[in-house]
Amino acid sequence: MKLLDGKAAAEALKKDITRDVERWSREFGRKPRLAAILVGDDPASHSYIKSKESDCRQVGMESIVYKLSATISQAGLIECVKSINEESGVDGLIVQLPLPEHLNEQEIIETIDPDKDVDGFHPLNVGRMVLGLPAFVAATPSGIVDLLDYFHIPLQGKECVILGRSNIVGKPLANLLSRKGYLGDCTVTLCHTKTVNLEEITSRADILIAALGRPHFVKAAMVKEGAVVVDVGINRVESNDTKSGYKLVGDVDFDDVAPRCSYITPVPGGVGPMTRVSLLKNTLQAAMRQNIMFL
Amino acid sequence: MKLLDGKAAAEALKKDITRDVERWSREFGRKPRLAAILVGDDPASHSYIKSKESDCRQVGMESIVYKLSATISQAGLIECVKSINEESGVDGLIVQLPLPEHLNEQEIIETIDPDKDVDGFHPLNVGRMVLGLPAFVAATPSGIVDLLDYFHIPLQGKECVILGRSNIVGKPLANLLSRKGYLGDCTVTLCHTKTVNLEEITSRADILIAALGRPHFVKAAMVKEGAVVVDVGINRVESNDTKSGYKLVGDVDFDDVAPRCSYITPVPGGVGPMTRVSLLKNTLQAAMRQNIMFL
Repeated sequence: MKLLDGKAAAEALKKDITRDVERWSREFGRKPRLAAILVGDDPASHSYIKSKESDCRQVGMESIVYKLSATISQAGLIECVKSINEESGVDGLIVQLPLPEHLNEQEIIETIDPDKDVDGFHPLNVGRMVLGLPAFVAATPSGIVDLLDYFHIPLQGKECVILGRSNIVGKPLANLLSRKGYLGDCTVTLCHTKTVNLEEITSRADILIAALGRPHFVKAAMVKEGAVVVDVGINRVESNDTKSGYKLVGDVDFDDVAPRCSYITPVPGGVGPMTRVSLLKNTLQAAMRQNIMFL
Repeated sequence: MKLLDGKAAAEALKKDITRDVERWSREFGRKPRLAAILVGDDPASHSYIKSKESDCRQVGMESIVYKLSATISQAGLIECVKSINEESGVDGLIVQLPLPEHLNEQEIIETIDPDKDVDGFHPLNVGRMVLGLPAFVAATPSGIVDLLDYFHIPLQGKECVILGRSNIVGKPLANLLSRKGYLGDCTVTLCHTKTVNLEEITSRADILIAALGRPHFVKAAMVKEGAVVVDVGINRVESNDTKSGYKLVGDVDFDDVAPRCSYITPVPGGVGPMTRVSLLKNTLQAAMRQNIMFL
């Protein structure tokens, strides 16, 4: 069994990105810039945004955070998104989710200029991705594909079973991995809460991807000998082993499953770091796309 | 074995549509209108457009066909699409494909107002469909789902195997059938040219959908006893049995496969008529959506 070490892969990708950012910055006389809108005081959201700022710094990009009151109106937030859409110095724009309950997230997402939508949540980007057109792909599925690529996991013709049909992981990943060509060409089965005989289905998988958000759901009996297992889950569970009284565990029971695998992601340190890098990659891509016309 | 009689289902749906069109027309003082752009002299395209006009007439809708020269420029065609987008009396707009080679189809498709895109080819509609938002869904996948619904085929938790990952059938259908809720909740596997052990995979299917465009590809040995088989293929093959010297056959070897099935679509008379009805359904929906604000 080998670890799909997301930390190592992410560091390697960040080196490439840093080099490209440097080149781009020399060319255009400024750094690529990510704008983030943060609404309200949710501590988790604040901490995510801090990480994103630090990631940007690390690869030589600029970030700018618009901190807005939790009481902002839908119209006010839309105005804010529109004005950032217009700023030529901003390459990528994200709105940190979740938004306070009185706001309509979907409408906000659809207000973001698709060419700056580096989270890849705008339906236009989702559609373009599904159709095999150039598109921003959501960070987690994009990071998973890059992780498999980094470790040279063969994909063509492999049976891939995905657990969980969320809009930001399972669905886009199913579409990505079944598309034609390099980093695709898997035979994908998408499973969910209504799937019957789940264990039988997961046992067929050459590549098993768990993204259902249930701690230690995947056990050895569900995994084919020699499979590649990717664990997208990050679940907070109580623990006596840590000072904080909790620890983070994946959707896969690592100790039980690992011995049967050819490759497996650790949690943390697997998919997580790759997800973070994907946002940087998308922002760089946005900068390149928007400025190619001036070359 | 029972036939999934698409002709009968289409007739029933057309009755419902006719009734709704009548009601809508009374309400708004005009009939819902489908505009179609037809470029060049391709005989097949002309015949498809004729069928669409006749379908519209049959349910009480208006159709208007813009016949353009095969030599029209990309810019000229874009202008035409844009001006029809603006026409308040046009509810749905389609551009008959394929276009002559010098034209960029994708750009034309993306010029159509997504709210009038009753073919459901605009990436925004594809993305919205994938995300479970209201959207126009391409005619063939939409017609297949309606056909399964009409014959009360249970979908929840069923293993569905789709052969073929085209942008207009396989991919959208995989997304549709795996979505959450009524007329979804299947466990879908999408197969394609790179799929290995195809026969093993198709044999798992409770619902097998063939959309790969290869005459009589699916044989009895690939089908599970009691499966529901949907044949999307329409292949023209030479024949001594007909005056014209050819006949239309599906992707499924009907005579071989039918005895193993619980349900199977005939070709012709299965998916085809449902596809035609879907365009009417989408056009009615477009008319309803655009005018709901004036109610």
